[in-house]
Amino acid sequence: MYCKCGKKAIVFRRYSGEKLCERCFNKSMIERVKKVIRKYSLIEKNDRVGVAVSGGKDSLVLLNILKKLSEKYPFDLIAVTIDEGIKGYRDKTIEIVKKNCKLLGIESKVYSFKKELGHSMDEIAKRDRKLSACSYCGVFRRYLLNKKTRELGCNKIAIGHNLDDEVQTILMNFLRGDLSRFGRTGSYYIYSNERFVPRIKPLREIPEKENVVYALSNNIEVGFSRCLYAGEAYRNNIREFLNKMELEQPTTKYSLLRSYDKIYPLIAKNLAKKVKYCEKCGEPTIGDICKTCEFLEKL
Amino acid sequence: MYCKCGKKAIVFRRYSGEKLCERCFNKSMIERVKKVIRKYSLIEKNDRVGVAVSGGKDSLVLLNILKKLSEKYPFDLIAVTIDEGIKGYRDKTIEIVKKNCKLLGIESKVYSFKKELGHSMDEIAKRDRKLSACSYCGVFRRYLLNKKTRELGCNKIAIGHNLDDEVQTILMNFLRGDLSRFGRTGSYYIYSNERFVPRIKPLREIPEKENVVYALSNNIEVGFSRCLYAGEAYRNNIREFLNKMELEQPTTKYSLLRSYDKIYPLIAKNLAKKVKYCEKCGEPTIGDICKTCEFLEKL
Repeated sequence: MYCKCGKKAIVFRRYSGEKLCERCFNKSMIERVKKVIRKYSLIEKNDRVGVAVSGGKDSLVLLNILKKLSEKYPFDLIAVTIDEGIKGYRDKTIEIVKKNCKLLGIESKVYSFKKELGHSMDEIAKRDRKLSACSYCGVFRRYLLNKKTRELGCNKIAIGHNLDDEVQTILMNFLRGDLSRFGRTGSYYIYSNERFVPRIKPLREIPEKENVVYALSNNIEVGFSRCLYAGEAYRNNIREFLNKMELEQPTTKYSLLRSYDKIYPLIAKNLAKKVKYCEKCGEPTIGDICKTCEFLEKL
Repeated sequence: MYCKCGKKAIVFRRYSGEKLCERCFNKSMIERVKKVIRKYSLIEKNDRVGVAVSGGKDSLVLLNILKKLSEKYPFDLIAVTIDEGIKGYRDKTIEIVKKNCKLLGIESKVYSFKKELGHSMDEIAKRDRKLSACSYCGVFRRYLLNKKTRELGCNKIAIGHNLDDEVQTILMNFLRGDLSRFGRTGSYYIYSNERFVPRIKPLREIPEKENVVYALSNNIEVGFSRCLYAGEAYRNNIREFLNKMELEQPTTKYSLLRSYDKIYPLIAKNLAKKVKYCEKCGEPTIGDICKTCEFLEKL
């Protein structure tokens, strides 16, 4: 198996038929991220981008690629990590984030649930709860990410969601009948106001596997441990199904994303709700009180 | 397991928790079909409804329920069957259709591919083709159904698609990125002109299994044989996946249908194309020449 440049190929993209050597693969990854950024104007001149870095492969590949792009284009980067307080998991990945940031020369900020909100996930998980641990975690994480990047002067939050994450989420919300979530998986974010930092997903069209190859090929040290509380049976079924369909029809994931992208502008406009400010904390919300304040009261 | 009326239940609806005896189940089936018809104004006073009857359980359950309703409400029924010319399959089901129509006192019309278009499916299947047998069959069947029901003076075509058919089709077209087909699975049909008879799907919210129970409970003789040319691996994977998800979350199919129904008006308007008339046969088409004339030329 040879790359069109003549070197030995290390990657075969079934969905496009391309065979790529290491060099051409790396080049193609950068090009594809650039293309998505350009297509949706995700990053513009003089933007200050907060990159949500968990320490997993996706967020670190994102950080590395954005760093490369920021050397040629005028925008700033800062790494933002949320420490949920999960011993044996997040403490390890935070070390990995710090090493990577040092290596890349990017400022790294870490904000913890415990310090900012008063409860670590380890504490929340031990409680008698009506909701799953993941429900609290997701709400608190997004809340802090938005608040802290805004306070750091960022006008964008970059998130490492890859193609697989995206199509799983789209299908999951469609199946669940959760249309308001279904209307929020676009590559650009339609809700936005002065306290809400728009989220961008530059890796949205990169298959998960290719992020792994990129990390390996560029010697990026990444964390592979999984969250102790992750129990996503529903998402696992969907992942399994999509991988099976992709095997039979190697463009399934891209087709699904294209379907979604075509209907996104039609539904997002219609589903978009007016963003208000929380009566308790002042952060953006759709109701009168934001989910974070509501959940904190319950704890 | 007992029905709320006190009798022994024969059906347990996991998605709603209802336990129903035979009598209450049959009553509930009729009520649900009535509700869908009313919700979308599928049938109106003095309509003449052509029922597409293949001889399978769904179309015969539909015919039976519509017959019951037509005794109370002023609309006409006629059974229309397309004979694709598949020996060992369609010839058997046509006999079943005729028996049922005689029993119900409904006029039955049969139109064959061979007589109307010059080729039976058995002949087409033997040829060297670029497209699957199902591609020809689907196009020809819909073509004849529309033309013949219109010539019979019908202003609606009723089709027996059940909940399972619908959610499979919706998901299939979404995954395939086939947005123009994705925009055509609504309960009411947005395209329509004077030569295009609107299609309605009164069983759209009835799970396949309940059609089976209804047929058994009402002693409806139905055909259970499958088409010899049916090779729908893609649909089978989707069916399997949806059944698995439904097992884990017994409202999955309805949730998916609700998601779709909410976005349908948004996308259908946008995707609707102007219907023209075929330059060769005069039947409605989106291009200059209809698919049937295009396919017939190839044969």
